[in-house]
Amino acid sequence: MKVGIVGATGYGGVELIRLLEGHPVFQVEAVYSSSKEQKEVREEYPHLAHYNWLLEKIDPEEMAKSVDLIFTATPSGISTTLVPQLIEAGNRVIDLSGDFRLKEEGMYEKWYGKTPGPKKYIDEATYGLVEWFSEEVKESTFISNPGCYPTATLLGLIPVVKERMIQPHSIIIDAKSGLSGAGRSLSRTAHYAEINENMKIYKVNKHQHIPEIEQTLHRFDDNIGHVTFNPHLVPMTRGIMSTIYATVKDATTREELYDVYKKAYEGSTFVRVRPLGEFPATKEVSGSNYCDIGIDYDERTNRVTIVSVIDNLVKGAAGQAIENANILMGLKAETGLGFLPMYP
Amino acid sequence: MKVGIVGATGYGGVELIRLLEGHPVFQVEAVYSSSKEQKEVREEYPHLAHYNWLLEKIDPEEMAKSVDLIFTATPSGISTTLVPQLIEAGNRVIDLSGDFRLKEEGMYEKWYGKTPGPKKYIDEATYGLVEWFSEEVKESTFISNPGCYPTATLLGLIPVVKERMIQPHSIIIDAKSGLSGAGRSLSRTAHYAEINENMKIYKVNKHQHIPEIEQTLHRFDDNIGHVTFNPHLVPMTRGIMSTIYATVKDATTREELYDVYKKAYEGSTFVRVRPLGEFPATKEVSGSNYCDIGIDYDERTNRVTIVSVIDNLVKGAAGQAIENANILMGLKAETGLGFLPMYP
Amino acid sequence: MKVGIVGATGYGGVELIRLLEGHPVFQVEAVYSSSKEQKEVREEYPHLAHYNWLLEKIDPEEMAKSVDLIFTATPSGISTTLVPQLIEAGNRVIDLSGDFRLKEEGMYEKWYGKTPGPKKYIDEATYGLVEWFSEEVKESTFISNPGCYPTATLLGLIPVVKERMIQPHSIIIDAKSGLSGAGRSLSRTAHYAEINENMKIYKVNKHQHIPEIEQTLHRFDDNIGHVTFNPHLVPMTRGIMSTIYATVKDATTREELYDVYKKAYEGSTFVRVRPLGEFPATKEVSGSNYCDIGIDYDERTNRVTIVSVIDNLVKGAAGQAIENANILMGLKAETGLGFLPMYP
Amino acid sequence: MKVGIVGATGYGGVELIRLLEGHPVFQVEAVYSSSKEQKEVREEYPHLAHYNWLLEKIDPEEMAKSVDLIFTATPSGISTTLVPQLIEAGNRVIDLSGDFRLKEEGMYEKWYGKTPGPKKYIDEATYGLVEWFSEEVKESTFISNPGCYPTATLLGLIPVVKERMIQPHSIIIDAKSGLSGAGRSLSRTAHYAEINENMKIYKVNKHQHIPEIEQTLHRFDDNIGHVTFNPHLVPMTRGIMSTIYATVKDATTREELYDVYKKAYEGSTFVRVRPLGEFPATKEVSGSNYCDIGIDYDERTNRVTIVSVIDNLVKGAAGQAIENANILMGLKAETGLGFLPMYP
Repeated sequence: MKVGIVGATGYGGVELIRLLEGHPVFQVEAVYSSSKEQKEVREEYPHLAHYNWLLEKIDPEEMAKSVDLIFTATPSGISTTLVPQLIEAGNRVIDLSGDFRLKEEGMYEKWYGKTPGPKKYIDEATYGLVEWFSEEVKESTFISNPGCYPTATLLGLIPVVKERMIQPHSIIIDAKSGLSGAGRSLSRTAHYAEINENMKIYKVNKHQHIPEIEQTLHRFDDNIGHVTFNPHLVPMTRGIMSTIYATVKDATTREELYDVYKKAYEGSTFVRVRPLGEFPATKEVSGSNYCDIGIDYDERTNRVTIVSVIDNLVKGAAGQAIENANILMGLKAETGLGFLPMYP
Repeated sequence: MKVGIVGATGYGGVELIRLLEGHPVFQVEAVYSSSKEQKEVREEYPHLAHYNWLLEKIDPEEMAKSVDLIFTATPSGISTTLVPQLIEAGNRVIDLSGDFRLKEEGMYEKWYGKTPGPKKYIDEATYGLVEWFSEEVKESTFISNPGCYPTATLLGLIPVVKERMIQPHSIIIDAKSGLSGAGRSLSRTAHYAEINENMKIYKVNKHQHIPEIEQTLHRFDDNIGHVTFNPHLVPMTRGIMSTIYATVKDATTREELYDVYKKAYEGSTFVRVRPLGEFPATKEVSGSNYCDIGIDYDERTNRVTIVSVIDNLVKGAAGQAIENANILMGLKAETGLGFLPMYP
Repeated sequence: MKVGIVGATGYGGVELIRLLEGHPVFQVEAVYSSSKEQKEVREEYPHLAHYNWLLEKIDPEEMAKSVDLIFTATPSGISTTLVPQLIEAGNRVIDLSGDFRLKEEGMYEKWYGKTPGPKKYIDEATYGLVEWFSEEVKESTFISNPGCYPTATLLGLIPVVKERMIQPHSIIIDAKSGLSGAGRSLSRTAHYAEINENMKIYKVNKHQHIPEIEQTLHRFDDNIGHVTFNPHLVPMTRGIMSTIYATVKDATTREELYDVYKKAYEGSTFVRVRPLGEFPATKEVSGSNYCDIGIDYDERTNRVTIVSVIDNLVKGAAGQAIENANILMGLKAETGLGFLPMYP
Repeated sequence: MKVGIVGATGYGGVELIRLLEGHPVFQVEAVYSSSKEQKEVREEYPHLAHYNWLLEKIDPEEMAKSVDLIFTATPSGISTTLVPQLIEAGNRVIDLSGDFRLKEEGMYEKWYGKTPGPKKYIDEATYGLVEWFSEEVKESTFISNPGCYPTATLLGLIPVVKERMIQPHSIIIDAKSGLSGAGRSLSRTAHYAEINENMKIYKVNKHQHIPEIEQTLHRFDDNIGHVTFNPHLVPMTRGIMSTIYATVKDATTREELYDVYKKAYEGSTFVRVRPLGEFPATKEVSGSNYCDIGIDYDERTNRVTIVSVIDNLVKGAAGQAIENANILMGLKAETGLGFLPMYP
């Protein structure tokens, strides 16, 4: 099957190229860019020195003829207009942006500070958190791929929220990300000498992934209330860790908690629940599609601590997008994604 | 005045040497080590290539004659026996270990898993969190220097706890540290290829700084209850960030919160409260004795977010130890500590 | 085909596991260790959390029955005795150590400071620098896999040495490596706080890869004389760069030089000669089996500058070992090695 | 004495602020910027959060009245016109740019690709390599502060070049720098995710510091000829290492070589020649004004290996500028510069 990538010059797009190179069914037929048309991909990314690809012009009708599925790895605010055009021309689309994730009216404007896409498409978009919504993905032709922080956070939280073990309004998520999450656009924050040997918090209580997390949790427990979420930049390229704190309604045990997670993910290839007493480090999933989870229960405070790690560019972007594409095209979810983490 | 350093081959000890080099009153008279007696300091630390110092034998009587004050930068479990000997021989002591911090019986055994020092010395030790207990330091000859995480955390929390603004049992501290905090002893965790491009949580709900934080908070509000505290290692050498979450009893505003902090630290040279909307990064205090604090209040969750950063080896160890020594010896607290952060 | 790995707990061994996971023909049948027998691999390497493998006892006879080929990723000094046992029991062996590379008597003792293996096996071992000696590899059942520095350096130098363009005694190689090259054994040099934000030279004019480089160059020009080679550690996990300087016998041009390289590597999948004016960075081959080469000629000094980069654990170890295994077993050299660099 | 800093928002300028804070005689009276006039320094650099300084307008006449000396930490191409105006208004100037270093006509155009400043000022500028030209600095009122790479390289090379031990045309300098050397301007090269876990060579055989190195070496041996010099970026913030290779005319010994260096630098506070067998790492001078040198002689190749490290922002910029200012103003060269490296 032939696939196309729009936005191949961003880190999400170029990771799609990397992962699709090893895919046994999908073949990258073309890469598209509005801003860098006719530029060679290898000029932008010398690690692809042996590729001859040119960035092609976006033409929705033409694309519908030449490829079976399009990945849009475009920034928020671009997908709002591009994706509807692609769909209307008959393309299946996996959109990696945040533009079609927030269903409730007013939320996109509030948290993204931009004009949302057409309501029709927002309604149609299937939120592709694979472990929990794969049935919906199967029926869909338009997937909104989850955000990186929400993926790590929701995979960590859903098992206990679904079991209604968590006290409303008690969830606090302290998230940490490597710099590739900030994208390839230049900024002082991402300037090497400024962020090396440094760490910082950003968008305090204002990050646009907050409503995405809340909206999804409410599908499992509509009384769960608001969450506190704060992201930090740490001096590494890849990796997200969500450290999650929540108070349980009734005293529990670590063993009971562990059973909840083992059961929740027993059929999931890519979620690895760690044995009690062991917690995952970000590098232990680097370059892979795994989400590793470690858990603890503290009797002193009646709180659970849940640590969930992913590679932000794989499970948090390109890898999960391919999982969605696999399911949507009738393949096994894990097709082409079985590669191991790169360690060290 | 002449000072001596025991444990000069650890990172805390060598940082004392660095800071005391620029001190206008204190002069390092001798450096001591039990394990590396007669070894040259510059062999251990080639950055001191122009020093001729030998590591000397520990002899409490002799030390009492030759120096005015001793810094013990020894690991936990060593100070328990060494410090009493030094004091009995007549030395003034600033102890950087955790051995004399926990006052309540049973707590040291429980959290450190070791046998505590003599009760008499635990009772006598003044907990030297300078901004809040300088009056006690003035009267003392034996200071227990605060831990690195507690310093960042307590300076961040005390203003609101003291004002009794915080709901009991609501405090969660997510702390991040660079690797120098793990010391110079070799370990797989601190092996470069294992922790570079990586981050990990450790001692989940079990870190020995938890009771130190709680004990000190209780001096300001004895109803504050237990705290959740979890430390993480991030791939950098220096720096600690405590991201603190707490629910307020009554709805407040960011401005009100800001006033509480400005007032709390208006006379403090080394605590810099950042303007609303600005949050400190760890590198912005690197190499310096500053503790920078940024604050936010989130109406949605009724929680405050407090971000407190220090250099773990300066304000979190050697710098604060010198502040304590300054006060104890009748100097101005900030003597010799006015150097700026090294940025970038 | 079934393969076994001895020394699976080192970085070279665990990289073999990663790369073989995606190999279409080879299957890892067993992993062996003398020191950690019966330990679970995932305990040593939590990134393999979903593996159930136990480290098995080394038993050459048994191994000959159960696998088709053995990779020995053992340290220098271990292979000297282990490999002969394996071969005598009938195993095909790809040895990643330096123990069978130096053919001239006395050289191993001199540069490694250890007792060499039996002369018979040293003579029999085929030096598996794939791009230049694949014909010999085809005929062999025992391969000595090249060192990491020699691989980058020789691939950079051979084209001009073979053409006898280089003045004798004029070659200087300034090499830089990430810390994974130093292995997993703990050392102060590899302690994070010591080598982060730091770089150092080591084994000045004494590195054991010097005779390996000279021996191989002499196969192409026996007048080339001695080389100067110095390695440096730079604060990154993966990657080697060899910056090579050599004086040409006769004035040349950059274009002429470029033609020499293009011709030398036109049939080589894994050597990518960069266009004139472009030089490779180490990350542009990270995680992949590529060796990228950039070249310049400086009229002022009559010297060429050759920059050659590899991932030390892939092309410099496990990747090249698999290439050798592919050829030896009659597969295409590039089988299972076509994955792209991980960038960023 | 009062000093002013032009270009205080670059890394060189802000490092001057850091170092001058601890200077016992100089006091920063004002900081100037053409582009960011009236902006607060602490907005640009939050690590100076307790400073109230505004960036002031550049007014040469006014400056001559209010300060005793000006540091211009302006980029190349700005100093060409600014410095003459400052001097004509009567200011003493220490210029940190490369604009007044190259004395021979045509060289600045050739290597910087820009129009040079007035010949009169180029002639008048004293090249302030303190260890070798302090007598000239004493007589001067206008200093051209050496470049970062030339400082490390020349301090490493001059002793043997001066003794005419080195074969003409045999010098090769392989230099490595941290990213702060690339300045604060945003670029893809300095974007964190691009250069972290990466290293690259740049300006191959074209760096503008080549003629500066050659011009200065020719003052000690006019037959020394051209040098090969290539700089690399390594993933760290501070630090330069020059690894220097040169063939000696007559066979020598390591001990003889060592004597040459010890003698050359016996009166120099800031050059530390390491004992034979020991080589400096960049972090061992980080944050300090030291230049540490390690040396070896290799009988096999008749070459010396010289390793010279500095902190590019201190000895390679602000620190050496202050040394020059000290001498020029009649103070001891080392005044205010005795602080130790920050390690780890």
